Formats: sequence, structure tokens, C-alpha cells
Amino acid sequence: MAPLSAPRAADPAGAAGAADAPGPTRPARGRAPRGRAIVFVGFMGAGKSTAARELAHALGAEPLDSDLLLEERFGHSIAEQWARGGEASFRATEEELVCQLLARAGAGAVIALGGGSVLSERVRRALEPHLTVLLEIDPHCAWERVRGGEHGAERPLALSRERFFELYSERLPVYEGIADALLPARRAGVAARAAGRLRALADAPAGVRMVWATAASGEYPVLLAHGLLGDPPGGPAGGPLLSSPLWPFDAGRSRPFAVSDDTVAGMYGERLGAAEALITIPKGELHKTLASAEAVWRALVRGGMTRADHVVALGGGVVGDLAGFCAATYQRGVPVVHVPTTLVAQVDSAYGGKTGVDLPEAKNYVGAYHQPTGVFVDPAALRTLPERELNAGWVEVLKTALIAGGALWQRVADGGPVDEGVILACARAKLAVVSDDERDAGRRQVLNLGHTVGHAIETATGYTRLLHGEAVGLGLLAALRLSGQDDLHERVLELLRARSLPTTLQGFALGDAPLESLLAALHRDKKRTGAQVPFVLLDAPGRVRTGARVADSELRAAVAELLG
Amino acid sequence: MAPLSAPRAADPAGAAGAADAPGPTRPARGRAPRGRAIVFVGFMGAGKSTAARELAHALGAEPLDSDLLLEERFGHSIAEQWARGGEASFRATEEELVCQLLARAGAGAVIALGGGSVLSERVRRALEPHLTVLLEIDPHCAWERVRGGEHGAERPLALSRERFFELYSERLPVYEGIADALLPARRAGVAARAAGRLRALADAPAGVRMVWATAASGEYPVLLAHGLLGDPPGGPAGGPLLSSPLWPFDAGRSRPFAVSDDTVAGMYGERLGAAEALITIPKGELHKTLASAEAVWRALVRGGMTRADHVVALGGGVVGDLAGFCAATYQRGVPVVHVPTTLVAQVDSAYGGKTGVDLPEAKNYVGAYHQPTGVFVDPAALRTLPERELNAGWVEVLKTALIAGGALWQRVADGGPVDEGVILACARAKLAVVSDDERDAGRRQVLNLGHTVGHAIETATGYTRLLHGEAVGLGLLAALRLSGQDDLHERVLELLRARSLPTTLQGFALGDAPLESLLAALHRDKKRTGAQVPFVLLDAPGRVRTGARVADSELRAAVAELLG
Repeated sequence: MAPLSAPRAADPAGAAGAADAPGPTRPARGRAPRGRAIVFVGFMGAGKSTAARELAHALGAEPLDSDLLLEERFGHSIAEQWARGGEASFRATEEELVCQLLARAGAGAVIALGGGSVLSERVRRALEPHLTVLLEIDPHCAWERVRGGEHGAERPLALSRERFFELYSERLPVYEGIADALLPARRAGVAARAAGRLRALADAPAGVRMVWATAASGEYPVLLAHGLLGDPPGGPAGGPLLSSPLWPFDAGRSRPFAVSDDTVAGMYGERLGAAEALITIPKGELHKTLASAEAVWRALVRGGMTRADHVVALGGGVVGDLAGFCAATYQRGVPVVHVPTTLVAQVDSAYGGKTGVDLPEAKNYVGAYHQPTGVFVDPAALRTLPERELNAGWVEVLKTALIAGGALWQRVADGGPVDEGVILACARAKLAVVSDDERDAGRRQVLNLGHTVGHAIETATGYTRLLHGEAVGLGLLAALRLSGQDDLHERVLELLRARSLPTTLQGFALGDAPLESLLAALHRDKKRTGAQVPFVLLDAPGRVRTGARVADSELRAAVAELLG
Repeated sequence: MAPLSAPRAADPAGAAGAADAPGPTRPARGRAPRGRAIVFVGFMGAGKSTAARELAHALGAEPLDSDLLLEERFGHSIAEQWARGGEASFRATEEELVCQLLARAGAGAVIALGGGSVLSERVRRALEPHLTVLLEIDPHCAWERVRGGEHGAERPLALSRERFFELYSERLPVYEGIADALLPARRAGVAARAAGRLRALADAPAGVRMVWATAASGEYPVLLAHGLLGDPPGGPAGGPLLSSPLWPFDAGRSRPFAVSDDTVAGMYGERLGAAEALITIPKGELHKTLASAEAVWRALVRGGMTRADHVVALGGGVVGDLAGFCAATYQRGVPVVHVPTTLVAQVDSAYGGKTGVDLPEAKNYVGAYHQPTGVFVDPAALRTLPERELNAGWVEVLKTALIAGGALWQRVADGGPVDEGVILACARAKLAVVSDDERDAGRRQVLNLGHTVGHAIETATGYTRLLHGEAVGLGLLAALRLSGQDDLHERVLELLRARSLPTTLQGFALGDAPLESLLAALHRDKKRTGAQVPFVLLDAPGRVRTGARVADSELRAAVAELLG
């Protein structure tokens, strides 16, 4: 088990190490023996028993269920036991039984634990050698499931809605703190579909964490661990990633065709493992073009790639977008696995399936939605990033934290380092948005926070003088001003300065009429995309408003402020 | 109403006129007044009452149901009426009531007729001024629905399975003979989703026929009529197609961006109507390239196209594939409407959503699945096709007829002309296959009949000396030989000769070792696509076998035979 949430102040594991400070982020732990048991935890109503049954069936195992075993021992229902002996006595018996169960459980076992059992520290310690899977459920959905349900009356903790929600808030950090893997409870049958990946994860060395990503057109695992790309050699993947059991393709059946840029290929190409081909494009946004895509497609043909094979996108946002697009359209679509090596890609662009290339006239104008078959995140790869790029990438962390609010925002607002917990929290926040709106019909637009003005700045500066993240940082400042969030504006200004990020456009020669040129770029952009939703504003961290109308005078003032 | 099936020998309307013989295909009829009633017909169990209710609800009308009205009149169930007075007496009352109903029905009315009522010629005549919609159902599915259902016992004709299937076969030609539009009964809620298109069709002049196409990722109307493209001026579209109420986009909300080749654009660009832009590429397969796609994408950007707008593909297979691909990927996907002007496109390539361009190394290797929003077929456009192209396109008719079997094959085997009925029957056959297998996972492979050897011939001859259809014609001969269908082979040989199509490769200089060069092309193709399914064979017209293994010696013999 390992914490999956953005670490809290009280969490010593989270405070250790940062992506930009060398070394593993968490205290070393003894390697678990190969073949851990798979244990479902989560709030009542999440469907842990059902998930365990489905997973066990898929893996040819017998599921174990601590609640059922307890009722067997009592000879009556848990509700009755509570009525007879009270909660404390029940919890003691439960702790005993669960610890015995976990101590005896070996490879191949599939177990569902009662929702409250992991409140015991002894149970949490007993979970450590195993793979702990949190079945995530929204509290509203959980309440609907348990209150009127067949067993509603038999759940002693589901009698009052208020208490139910309180309990949820209390327990969520505990669940997130012990989970190695997260599955969405809302998706029926998800445990069976994730069976192969869960089995591989349970067989892999401890320390690899997984989030099961969902979108309208598909589901895929996101795996995260320091050293996944073989640093140190023989890291958690137990060898080169492409030949690891964690890799979602069988080497005998589907050959990997890697696409990278010349810089990343030199650093990580070999560590990735033996690809059928390693196709490189020149580094940088200027090469996210149809010409690069054509070079990739033709290299895939020459390499003999078939629809049974898959593409591996190894690199940052440009490589991910371009290789993803090539995969989406090669023979009308082959699978793609993303191995993001930059911060922007690890926290944002590798998730959600947007792919594409630029036209000379406009960025990202040719593309496709194409969900990956997997995303493999190695935060150790960030150590080789130039500082300016890392800082620019951090702006997407900042944006995601503003959109998500809560613990992630607190962590970022406090100036904490970007560690595995933050990367995973950003990935989860992005995936939560994308899951509801794969194709940009509504909810996904929250992700454009700061991007409307950011894009205009990129256009007006010719895409060469500012990195994307730097432009978005300025865009966030404008968006917060337009949102009337002056305190938050001040805080973000400080955070950007602390990372040496630009906070004004002073010094960028924008011609004779910089304000007019920026406003013109803004209006062109709006007209070109036919956007019904001109601005994304923020009412508070975690409270985003899309489709906001902004008065021309306010927009002019906010942009003028950036010009200093 | 108008015949939707491939015309039978006894059908005088179908025998008149052909696409390659000028003039309208059916006897002129008086124009129906604007605003016909929409009348559902079809076999028992198709769900006509439900469809009428759903459509009426969507259009804000009150549905009328002849069976319910009859039961009201009788004061008891139809089953009881049969028991009391027998079928003949029931039919007489039904005919009277239905004819009154249809005579009184005006614009906006939505009516469901009892399944047997249209057996009366008087009823069929009474249907003429209206829009007749056949709710298509498979007899197995219909039997499952009615035999055990709530009303099973009340259906006097659903008592014996044998009689039920007999009745189905008897009635199908009657239904198909009177239908203006076809909706698939299997898709729940389809009538409501088709409401806008049905309303437009009912408001349009008579003579336009519609098939509601379905695929996993979407549904769309296929509309067919002589003169849809404004020939003669003010044809069934009632003006230019783009401003016709039949067009599936509101001119005020979504602007059409037409893509065509320079030949077709000159002939039909203006007739199409006022597009926001008319973008042309050079004519021919040699221009189905990324360079052409890039020219189109950039023209779309320069024209200010947004995601709210749509692409119109006006032309043959090359334009459809290329414009469809550009639409699939412009801003990650905008809608496309196909207006096919060649025979290949009208009977095959405009349906099913396959789009793409060629790479120098391989045909159709960059592409996407992208279902159209509508297909508009004007057989009059075929009159301007060069004879060689028309004949090559006819090979796809032949292929489709071999796959579909039945009435369509009879018609084609008899050497009948390609008229509206044949075009619609081909479109329906193709759509039936694609509906079950949008992404080539299985069933869709039947469409590759003749294409394995056909592609090898195209490769070996450099894609320049034979038209695609000509190569497929030779491929069909090989496939029939490999299938052991010697009589059918003979028949197809005669049919190809009658259309002046090549039946051997004699005269095509294929180098020193033509047989080896063809076999090598075959093996490369198989290896490149990773096909698990090397050959599509035919056991009889309508009985296709995919995934067939073929001995090398047989393949060699079949190809050698083509070399003469």
C-alpha cells in the first residue's frame, strides 16, 4: 500500500523528496514477495463484495469477504451484532478476523474488507504486504445505494444522511492513504475489466500505483512509480518497461513502435526496452506538424506495423499529441501507450485522449480523440528537464490545483514540491473532468482556465518567445482578475514569481500597439473556434464557472495589466 | 410512396429508366400537397404503434393507430372480432376505416397502420399522397417479440411459427414496394431521433426516398432521388440542395464547406447551392494524399470554419475518403455530409464512415472512422460519368449483389440496368453489414470479397493502368475460382465482358515474372495488415465465408488463370 492522495501536511511520506530533488520520494520498503493478495477497501455502498466476486471470477480465484466471514462467525447479521454488543466490541472482533485473513492471504487471493475495518492501524499494517485497491465512490451515489437498498436497514451506519456524509469525509483520507490502486465504483464490471492489470500490479514489486482512467470511449490504467523507466536499473518495472508484466501488451502478440523526440530518445530510448522501431522527430512545438506526422506514418509503414501492434509515445506534450494522432489515424487507428517524460505531460496532456498537430495557421487544428491503452509515469524522468521547462510545466499543476481545490490546492498554494502525490492528484483531477466529457461538450471546458488569454499571448508572441506554460501563467492572472479574485490573484502572482515565471509581458516586444494586438488575437481565436463559451472564471479554488461573459472594458483592463 | 426494394421483374416502375439512360426513372406523378401525413407500416411486432407515439410526441402531434380505432369501433379486441366474424369481414372493416383515416389525414398527422392493412390495393392507393415509413424488423426478432409477449395470445396470426415466417416472406415485398422511408425497428427510440428528417421528408415533394443508416457511433439519413442536385432545376429538393429543408443543417447555425475535385466542382458545384467555400483538389486517386488533405485543412482554416460548421463531400470515392478524413480530424472532428456523384460512391464508399488518404507506400493507410451526418444520392449525376468509370463502378454493384444474394443478385445476374432501385438496394446491403461492425472487427470483412487479389493487382500494376473496380472485377473472378464456384465464375465472366470490363491481365506488362510479382504483392499485403483473415470466399450468392484458408497451390492457379 502507498498513499495515493496529494500528501497532507501531517503526512511524513509526502513531505520527503520531490520530483525536482533527486532520490526516491518515499522511504524504502522491503520488497513484497511476488504475488500479493488483492484487497478491496472503500466506503459502504461502493460495491466491494461485488467487485471482489467479479475479479476473483476473472482470475479463477475464490473471493473472501470479511463481512460475510464475520456473520458466519456470529451466526447472525452484523446489524444484530451491533445491537447486541455495540460498535467497539464488533470492531475488536473484526480487527482480529481481518488481521488473520490478511496474514494468511497469499498470491492469488482476492479479498473484500468491511468499510470501517481499515480505521484500525493494525489492519492497515496487515495490509502493507498486499495490493490495496480503493473502490472510489461519490458519497451521494453511495447514500442512494445504501439508504433505500435491500440491506439499507441492516447498515447501522447508514441511518442518518448527515452522519453518513460526515463518516465519508472522515474516512476518505484513510482510504486514499492506503490505496495502491483506484477503481471507479460507478462503472459496472470494472474490476473484471481491470483484472489483468490488477494481477500484473500485484505480481510487480511494491511501489507502483495505479489509477483506472475512464472515458466514454474506453478505460485504461495509469501507472506511476519512481524508476518505472529503469532508473535505478531494475526498478519497479523489474526490467525494461516494454518487457515488464506491467506493460499492457503481450510481447509475442503486439509489437511496440516507439515515437520520441531526438532529445528524449537519446536519454530514455534504450531504457524503455526493445521496441520494434524508435522513430524520432526534432524536439519542440515547431515540429508538431503534418510533416512530422507524415514522417512517423511512413516510418510505421516501412517498419511493417500492423493493426495488431501499438505505438509508444515517449516524451513530452508535443510527442504525445503527435504520436497519439499518428496512432489514431494509422490504418484508421492502432493503440497508443503514453510514457510522458515532462511535467506538463505527466500532470495533464498524457490523459484524456486529445491528440493532434498544428497547422501553420493555427495550433492543434488537425487531430483526433484517441484514448490511450495505458499511461506510464516515471517522475524520475523530470530530473533531466531544464529548469525553465519544469517551471513552465508547473503552471499546469497550478491550473489543475485551482480547478480541483481542496487538498491539492492547499499543497500547491503552500509552495510544496511537485512529488509523486501531487502528480497523481493532478492526473486524477484531470481524469475526473475528462471522464465526464470526453469530447469537450461541457465540463471539460473548465480545463481551459487561463488558456483563453494564454493562447492569445502565444499567438501574439509567435509561439517562440514564451513556453506554453509561461503564457498560461499569465493567462491565469488575467482569468483571476476577470473573476474578481484579487487575493487569489496576489497568491498566484507570488507563486509564479517564486518559480521565476513571467508575471508581465514587459520586455516582450509586441509591436506598436501591444494591447490591440493581444485583443485582436483573442477575438480571432474566439471567432475561429466558434466557442459559445468565451471565458472560464474561478469563484474559488475548486469552483470553476464556464461560459462566463466578460465586458470588453474588463477584458481590456485585465490584458492591459499584463502589459505592465 | 415509392418502391424501396430492388425492383422485381413484375414491377413496371422498376423496369423503366436507368441511371445510364437519361430521363426520370419512374412515371411522373402529381406533386403531393406540401405536408404529407407520416404513416408507419410494417410487420407485426415491429413496434409501429410505439414508433408513431414517439414520433408524434417529438413533432407535437397526436398519434393515430388503426388497430386501436378498430377496437374502439368493435367494442372489443381484434382477436375477438376475428373469432366472431373471421378474417375477411375484419379486413373489410379495416380497409374502410384505414381509407377514411388516410383520406382525412393532413400535414402533421402521424399514423400507425395494422400490419395486414396494406395488403389491400385500395389502402395502398390511399397511402400514395402520404409519406409511408416501413419499420423494418427481422422475422426472428419479430417472432420473439410477439409470441410470448403480453399481446401474443391476442394476435391471431402469431399462433404458429411456420405460418408467421411464411406471412413475413409474403408481405415483405408489399411493404418494401410502398415504403418511402425505412427505419430499423431494432433501434429503440429511432422514430424520435429521425423526427426532424421525417418531417422534412414529408414536407418535401414526393419522390425522395430515405434509409435510416445506423452504426455503433451514430445514425444518419441516406436520401435518394433523381434530380436531388437540381437537375432538372427545382427538382425534388425544391431548390439548391444546401438550402433545401432536406439538408440536415440549419443554414443559420452551421455553414457548409464543400470539398470536391476540379471536374465535379465544375459540373455540380453551383447546383449544390451557396456553400461558404468550395475547395477543390485535382481529380483522381493519385491525389488522395496528405498534401491534398493539408490543402483542404488549410483552406478550411482560412475560410474560418468552426466546429459548428460542416463539410460537404461532393464527388466520387476519392473526394469522399479525403473530405471525410479532413472532417474527421479538423479541430478533432466536424460533421460531414456526403453527396456522391459516382457509381462506386453511390453504391458503396459513401456509406459506413471509412475515411482516409494514401501514403506513397500504401493505400488508405492514414484515416479514421467517421460516420456522415447524411448522404444525398442523385442517380442523375451518373449520366455525366465516362463509360469506363461507370463500368468500373458497376463492379461494386456486382460485388454487393454477390454478397447480398436474393432479389438484388437476380436483378444484377439478369443484366438489368443500374437504376434507383439497384442503387438503393446496394446501399441497404452495405449499410446492413456496416451497422453490425463499424470498425472491421468481423462481419464487415465480407465486403472485401474480390479485394484481396484486386489490391494485389492494383499494387502490381502501379495503381495507374487499371481502375479500382476493374481490378476488383478480376479479384472477384479469382475469389469465385477459389470458392469452387465454377458456374458462378462463368456467369460473372459474362457479366464483366458485357460491360467491357477486363477479364484477364493479358496486355498489362507485368514484368518478367508476372505470376511471382502478383503473389509477392498478395503476401506483402497480408503481412502488412496483419490480417487474420486471408480470404473471403462465396458459397453461393448471399452466403459469404470470411477467414478462409487457401492452399498456396490453389491461389497460384487462380492467379495464373487471370494472367491468361
